[in-house]
Amino acid sequence: MEKLYVIKIGGNIIDNEINLSSFLDLFAGVRGRKILVHGGGKLATSLAATLKVPQQMIDGRRITDSETLKIVTMVYAGLINKNIVAGLQSRGSNAIGLTGADGNAIQAHKRIHATVDYGFAGDVDLINTKLLARLLDEDLDLVFAPLTHDMKGQLLNTNADTIAQEIAKGLSNQYKVDLIYSFEKSGVLRDANDDSTVIKTIDRVSYETLKENQIIFAGMIPKLDNAFSAIKHGVARVVIGKAEQLAELITGSAGTTITDAA
Amino acid sequence: MEKLYVIKIGGNIIDNEINLSSFLDLFAGVRGRKILVHGGGKLATSLAATLKVPQQMIDGRRITDSETLKIVTMVYAGLINKNIVAGLQSRGSNAIGLTGADGNAIQAHKRIHATVDYGFAGDVDLINTKLLARLLDEDLDLVFAPLTHDMKGQLLNTNADTIAQEIAKGLSNQYKVDLIYSFEKSGVLRDANDDSTVIKTIDRVSYETLKENQIIFAGMIPKLDNAFSAIKHGVARVVIGKAEQLAELITGSAGTTITDAA
Repeated sequence: MEKLYVIKIGGNIIDNEINLSSFLDLFAGVRGRKILVHGGGKLATSLAATLKVPQQMIDGRRITDSETLKIVTMVYAGLINKNIVAGLQSRGSNAIGLTGADGNAIQAHKRIHATVDYGFAGDVDLINTKLLARLLDEDLDLVFAPLTHDMKGQLLNTNADTIAQEIAKGLSNQYKVDLIYSFEKSGVLRDANDDSTVIKTIDRVSYETLKENQIIFAGMIPKLDNAFSAIKHGVARVVIGKAEQLAELITGSAGTTITDAA
Repeated sequence: MEKLYVIKIGGNIIDNEINLSSFLDLFAGVRGRKILVHGGGKLATSLAATLKVPQQMIDGRRITDSETLKIVTMVYAGLINKNIVAGLQSRGSNAIGLTGADGNAIQAHKRIHATVDYGFAGDVDLINTKLLARLLDEDLDLVFAPLTHDMKGQLLNTNADTIAQEIAKGLSNQYKVDLIYSFEKSGVLRDANDDSTVIKTIDRVSYETLKENQIIFAGMIPKLDNAFSAIKHGVARVVIGKAEQLAELITGSAGTTITDAA
């Protein structure tokens, strides 16, 4: 099977023009089929402040009311997505920007929750793998903004980590998929304050031990649960690490690699 | 040759939710290959006012400084484009939203002018007809926001009429292209104040007479010059009329049809 890289970059890269430029150099340099999923960063929050649209966060998730949806649609699908696409085009990557609405790439439904109304937040139902594979076959690099739709005309704000994971899973029948999550640290750390303590590999057995010994805890647990879920659903490899080390994350010489080995 | 409709809608449709909804019903109902090019409307102007970014217009064209470029990228490529795409998806049209940067669909250069600095305004150099034809072959309806790029990483604000015309010309080797311009009037009028005086057909000979008799003047002249230029470059037919009459513009029973007949 052909190799495919699904690479998620976080807000800390997008918020900084120099970091983003360096990252686009690295991304454009990755050989072969690739998909980039970008988060939102702080731009939406600062635009909301300027426009005096109050932002409510619950458990780190933005409550997307209709005015906030307009803002994230402008910032994610417009400003960020198109500048990334233009930046990649200038670096020899034939990028095309997409939201889940485009070509019905990602269908979702408005999140249903017993106690919290997340507003126009989407939970993914379906990845249009046929379309994505066709676009990849045209030697296009796909750049996803974290928005989906419900096929009833409603755009939905959707977590970028989830989009990356669902795309990786969805395409794992057709490609040997490496899913790469970039964040602000060098990988999963033994000592959260020491960036030199990266755990190189985590498999199911060592994951249980790391959790028991409380080396892995809090926010890292859902990230790793998601990684193992991706692997269970056919993704070949998940790597977590720094965007600045994209080339090394791809070769496996940096970051934390999650495998199903054990 | 297969038929292709290139349809441009103006700001007066985009600015009104009910008009836009009716138009999307009509567009989704058009059988066969089709491309929609949308303008910007007043949303960018009102967002600029809210954000206190002063807007300068020269001869009806917006001067696109860097802050204005951010605004039009957010509004055109984000808010308007993605809402149109989601709206069309819900109506059974498999729409995909694009700017000229996406897949290098439309390459342009920053406008060079002897006396006026238009800022980040783009003049079209190249339509990526291969990509557009491939996407159309996937039964996708293409929805273009009026933005292009220069392949050096710079997005450029670009006139939607021009984009529609260049796409129509570019694809006329592969398709029998009908180019449909929708605007606020029912067509080219004998009496500018009477919407019932639509001139049904204009050919090169009658165009000269209409100009001599000053029935056609001012802003309509560049529109018609562009229409004749499109026909000269292979476009089968150009129709000018009201978006509300899209079905009739397509059959030729409403609007003004420009032909090369004479």
